[in-house]
Amino acid sequence: MIPPGLLPEGLRDRLPPQAEATAALVHGLTATFASHGYERVQPPLVEYEESLGSRLGGAARRELLRFTDPISQHTLALRSDITGQVGRIAVTRLAATARPLRLSYAGPVLRVRGTQLSPERESVQVGVELIGSDSPAAAGEVVSLAVTALAGTGLAGLSLDLTMPTLVADLVAAGWPLGRASLADVQALLDGKDVGGLHALGAGAFEPLIAAAGPADAALARLAALPLPDAVRARLDAVAALVAALPDIAVTLDPTERHGFEYQTWIGFSLFGAGVPGEIGRGGAYAIVTPEGATEAAIGFSLYVDGLVDAGLGVVDARRVLLPLGTDAAVAARLRADGWATVAALSADARPADFRCTHILDGVEPRAI
Amino acid sequence: MIPPGLLPEGLRDRLPPQAEATAALVHGLTATFASHGYERVQPPLVEYEESLGSRLGGAARRELLRFTDPISQHTLALRSDITGQVGRIAVTRLAATARPLRLSYAGPVLRVRGTQLSPERESVQVGVELIGSDSPAAAGEVVSLAVTALAGTGLAGLSLDLTMPTLVADLVAAGWPLGRASLADVQALLDGKDVGGLHALGAGAFEPLIAAAGPADAALARLAALPLPDAVRARLDAVAALVAALPDIAVTLDPTERHGFEYQTWIGFSLFGAGVPGEIGRGGAYAIVTPEGATEAAIGFSLYVDGLVDAGLGVVDARRVLLPLGTDAAVAARLRADGWATVAALSADARPADFRCTHILDGVEPRAI
Repeated sequence: MIPPGLLPEGLRDRLPPQAEATAALVHGLTATFASHGYERVQPPLVEYEESLGSRLGGAARRELLRFTDPISQHTLALRSDITGQVGRIAVTRLAATARPLRLSYAGPVLRVRGTQLSPERESVQVGVELIGSDSPAAAGEVVSLAVTALAGTGLAGLSLDLTMPTLVADLVAAGWPLGRASLADVQALLDGKDVGGLHALGAGAFEPLIAAAGPADAALARLAALPLPDAVRARLDAVAALVAALPDIAVTLDPTERHGFEYQTWIGFSLFGAGVPGEIGRGGAYAIVTPEGATEAAIGFSLYVDGLVDAGLGVVDARRVLLPLGTDAAVAARLRADGWATVAALSADARPADFRCTHILDGVEPRAI
Repeated sequence: MIPPGLLPEGLRDRLPPQAEATAALVHGLTATFASHGYERVQPPLVEYEESLGSRLGGAARRELLRFTDPISQHTLALRSDITGQVGRIAVTRLAATARPLRLSYAGPVLRVRGTQLSPERESVQVGVELIGSDSPAAAGEVVSLAVTALAGTGLAGLSLDLTMPTLVADLVAAGWPLGRASLADVQALLDGKDVGGLHALGAGAFEPLIAAAGPADAALARLAALPLPDAVRARLDAVAALVAALPDIAVTLDPTERHGFEYQTWIGFSLFGAGVPGEIGRGGAYAIVTPEGATEAAIGFSLYVDGLVDAGLGVVDARRVLLPLGTDAAVAARLRADGWATVAALSADARPADFRCTHILDGVEPRAI
């Protein structure tokens, strides 16, 4: 028998004031997205496993919580990510809507198991997708929006880590010598910062990429000094312009890092902040596969609200006033219209502190206690 | 193979503007709850089936979507209702918090199958629970809050249907003659308004309860004329006071109706409105079982937001302005601060109508188009 009050591993209740903080952060972030023209969509929590899974990578697909639908006998799954659902909506139900299409979303996601850094199995994901373009201008808008939205939460120490997920493949395509290594070998050696390994396989040309990681301005300068094809140089210019347009936050560039998001195209990014372990959010450019088998360019980001809540952000400092028995309803309504949360005493001995009230109504005005 | 874009039966995407309307309604309703002192809790979407199921009636328990947890091998279920989760929190993690405890919640719920009236399997439930009292004052507060919150959504034709779920049992306990009928027989005959059946079993004393259904004032007067025990008469007085304190909406009393919510105690209620098929919400007094096996009185209500959205409520009429290429970032920020949603053109030929913009920026001011 399950003890009353016990929850399965990796699942938790949010209590006051954290539950309200979660709602306030979601509201604030999505309001910022809306003010930049992103329109809300709300896909369902559950879809066909085949449909959800086909829009995830293999490892992520194994993290889907799945079950047999008692109605259709199909295998359904709880979504572990909303990005893919938004892409599905964009290329099916909103296929005829003009591009770029700007969509936002917010809601819970679930996965089979948490990680050491983030043991929760249920979390709240919010984000935007800009569909129909992954141009430098689109990337600039999306990265800037992520930074603006997070800054609006009061998060301190916000920093941005940029990556160029297709850089190595682009250089190989442009003729940089692989020696006896494969593209995958070179990417793995770069992920491990393995200079010796690169040289051993005759792929020493890629070594300078390891040194070109760090604060964005210096990293961009180091990269620009390399013999790059024009297309890559244009992307560096786009990254430099994007960085220049950001407010004064720490920006690093780790050009060959892929963060396990191999589906991204020319730019990827992660966001970090003071007091939040691990990433707060991530995003990048990618391609959505349409029902006709074509692809459509897109760029977006997801933010994970729970890390912000755990860091103490979003807490709403409500002014709470206890209304003694018999308080006139019109007086109570006026206080609420003035921004007070009113707590009606149901007995003559109700004490303000028991109800987290900072004030008690004295006549027609709140009195601090 | 599942066609791209196909969703399982009973599940749907919310698109613009309905997705935003859902979020706006949830925000408005929960803000009203907060202004009345109700503090937010957020239980998980998934719990042990045993735990969720034990707080539901038998029929509702069969509607839980369940699956085996790949981690613990326990049977888990997706919640079909949040009320029971809030009760669990109240009597476990918040057992030591002063009563009455006022909690609110909002979130998705899922069930195995929809109904003919409401085919969706996923819906958004919001509500409040007042825990530690089901006194007339508590009932008055909760019913009034439900009406106030719904009125704030702009819903027209709001009406309230009150019930007294334990009335028949209370009258039997006070000695009203059952004849050859059982309590369950009488309740079933009253549910079917079966006058002949009541008389045939010698339970004709209960017949006047059938006529005492209808507009609340008249129904209360008819009931008051019956030979009632003092405890029931006191409850009628409480219902009359509650009705008198409400704004000018249609209130009916169907004293013996139980709406399938047999766990309710002395009062139950349902809410209806123009353009919304079926109930918008329901509530009532009930008892929460504590881990020690005792009970704690509570009263609350749940509202179902999807019916309001489907009736066209909650749609946010955003002022959207297209920003031509090269618009100054400071000008854009000022427009957003003034309440505009800005849509940045990513190409010189962007047309306002394609992005649902009502205005285009002309110099530093929006111009209607």
